[in-house]
Amino acid sequence: RKTYKLAVLPGDGIGKETVPEGLRVLDAAARRFGFDLELKHYDWSCETYAQTGKMMPDDGLDQLAQSDSVFLGAVGWPGVPDHVSLWGLLIPIRRGFDQYISLRPCKLMPGGRTPLANRGPEDIDFYVVRENTEGEYSSTGGRMFPGTDREFVTQDSVFTRVGVDRVMKYAFELAMTRPRRKLTSATKSNGITFTMPYWDERFAEMAKNYPGVTTDQFHIDILCAHFVQHPDWFDVVVGSNLFGDILSDLGPAVAGSIGIAPSANINPEKKFPSMFEPVHGSAPDIAGKWICNPIGQIWSGAMMLEHLGEKAAADCIVKAIETLLAEGGPRTRDMGGNAGTVDVGKALAEAV
Amino acid sequence: RKTYKLAVLPGDGIGKETVPEGLRVLDAAARRFGFDLELKHYDWSCETYAQTGKMMPDDGLDQLAQSDSVFLGAVGWPGVPDHVSLWGLLIPIRRGFDQYISLRPCKLMPGGRTPLANRGPEDIDFYVVRENTEGEYSSTGGRMFPGTDREFVTQDSVFTRVGVDRVMKYAFELAMTRPRRKLTSATKSNGITFTMPYWDERFAEMAKNYPGVTTDQFHIDILCAHFVQHPDWFDVVVGSNLFGDILSDLGPAVAGSIGIAPSANINPEKKFPSMFEPVHGSAPDIAGKWICNPIGQIWSGAMMLEHLGEKAAADCIVKAIETLLAEGGPRTRDMGGNAGTVDVGKALAEAV
Ligand SMILES: CC(C)[C@H](C(=O)O)[C@@H](O)C(=O)O
Ligand SMILES: CC(C)[C@H](C(=O)O)[C@@H](O)C(=O)O
Repeated sequence: RKTYKLAVLPGDGIGKETVPEGLRVLDAAARRFGFDLELKHYDWSCETYAQTGKMMPDDGLDQLAQSDSVFLGAVGWPGVPDHVSLWGLLIPIRRGFDQYISLRPCKLMPGGRTPLANRGPEDIDFYVVRENTEGEYSSTGGRMFPGTDREFVTQDSVFTRVGVDRVMKYAFELAMTRPRRKLTSATKSNGITFTMPYWDERFAEMAKNYPGVTTDQFHIDILCAHFVQHPDWFDVVVGSNLFGDILSDLGPAVAGSIGIAPSANINPEKKFPSMFEPVHGSAPDIAGKWICNPIGQIWSGAMMLEHLGEKAAADCIVKAIETLLAEGGPRTRDMGGNAGTVDVGKALAEAV
Repeated sequence: RKTYKLAVLPGDGIGKETVPEGLRVLDAAARRFGFDLELKHYDWSCETYAQTGKMMPDDGLDQLAQSDSVFLGAVGWPGVPDHVSLWGLLIPIRRGFDQYISLRPCKLMPGGRTPLANRGPEDIDFYVVRENTEGEYSSTGGRMFPGTDREFVTQDSVFTRVGVDRVMKYAFELAMTRPRRKLTSATKSNGITFTMPYWDERFAEMAKNYPGVTTDQFHIDILCAHFVQHPDWFDVVVGSNLFGDILSDLGPAVAGSIGIAPSANINPEKKFPSMFEPVHGSAPDIAGKWICNPIGQIWSGAMMLEHLGEKAAADCIVKAIETLLAEGGPRTRDMGGNAGTVDVGKALAEAV
């Protein structure tokens, strides 16, 4: 009987409400599929920051490193600037644990509500694979001539062979597991003329190793347009840190799932723990009311189980979500119902 | 009686078919509203490149500088790489003439076809103002350790005080002319931590001069999602070169107008000519058949007249397009009809 060690970080706001429901469903899956979960709870958050001046202790990463996976709620709270909250907790985990893949399914669930006309679940079902450590999110740059008319600020985009090749490899491997075996690359080599042609060059090079995968590429501007006009064209889409960030919000928006979409920050070699979190944030406006939708958290739990090797359990959770949505199980307000957070969690745990 | 000098560049592919129709409608407007157009034709294109090895002559910009405006069709043809065609003609004009504003209306026309469910013309009617000379489209960067495992490529993003302030000023001024007086800034200061906080800083500073304008800002990822989910939130949106590029394709896609949308590259001080071109490209697949839709070109002509100071004539052309679309006038294939390019041009010229 396998045991997985989870570091549980509810974080801020509705994270404290969704994480318990995520755990409820994970627990049900563990019992049904015969594995154990060993939980360790961490209250690191903007409250911790208010008390200690730090989002997490200095040895925070060392503590988390003992776990197999990190199960995160949401980070951020009004009054605490992003460069403190996100750059004090979320980003250090992503980078410190070399979680170089951000993976997000963009999937119109049966009964889901896409803003697009005449689109069904068969039309919107793809993954966005985002590079999660380098690219446009660099730490080099600066300001000259501050406060004068000559003032300017620069920031480098940095694309390394190692960084580009490994995210592409992951994306090609993922495409190989999908029925359509199709991979789309997001580029902008017609405008951003150093880094993006390099991205294209490596994509073409990597494609040689995967003759079974159909490839294409679009500039990010028209690619965003295609997400809206032709979401059915896509199977797996790979993008840089920035382009992947944009596409992995636009994709769920198009699928009508932005409030329930999951996200995985993965270190594929499992040298470090990976981290699983819903796409939504801490939602200060509804926090504390126990009316938020826990499906994004629960779905993130499914992605975590898949990563840990419990594919059957993961599929079972996703199926339970699909069934609940399709058959009018309890719904929170954002989906037009009036169930509470706990009602949805319990219904899904039971279904599993 | 005023005379405007136009430099006419059909360019490649369907540009040769749309530009004559654009001119037909401009000519009708000139006769009705009492001004003259003095045309100078230039055949610079990928064909020129095939013959001369250059997209335009060395003194190309000097020649164009004699005109009040440049009326462009489309640039690009299979077999000629973008860095030759675009960077040999389109980009040098934008930069050489300091056309630091790219302006694109995102407007659902009456009878238009948005891919969104339950959205009417009252829901989608905004402008994207894009910085058009600096930012992420820089010319500094390079490659180290080529061909090795340590290979990396960098490219600077460069945001200057002059460059940022002037595009924001333009956007605020535009917002002042709109009934809702609302301006949204596209940022990503939570991830891109040198340049984007500077962008936010200047936006906040400029906003002080325009107390009558309501402002907000979103990170580009969620902003793209909002374009799909809440297009009615937007009035004027200002973005950097890259973010503006993305939003000004996504906006027309959401409005269902990507095939007919116009675009203006403006030097607001009129120190240099401005350039007007449709958003669509040269469409090699349908070029030469005279079935392409000339509305993007004609609408670009309207933007040109507005820039030249002929607002009544500009409004009249836009009205004619709206009426044709709403009342089932001749339509090209892309809009479900079977009219030719010339039929649409003639109908609009007549209406004007
Ligand atoms: C052709 C290309 C460089 C260009 C850009 O990104 O500026 C295009 O997408 C546009 O918007 O006109
Ligand atoms: C919080 C922020 C830095 C982040 C990002 O851009 O990576 C967010 O948008 C996300 O996608 O998790």
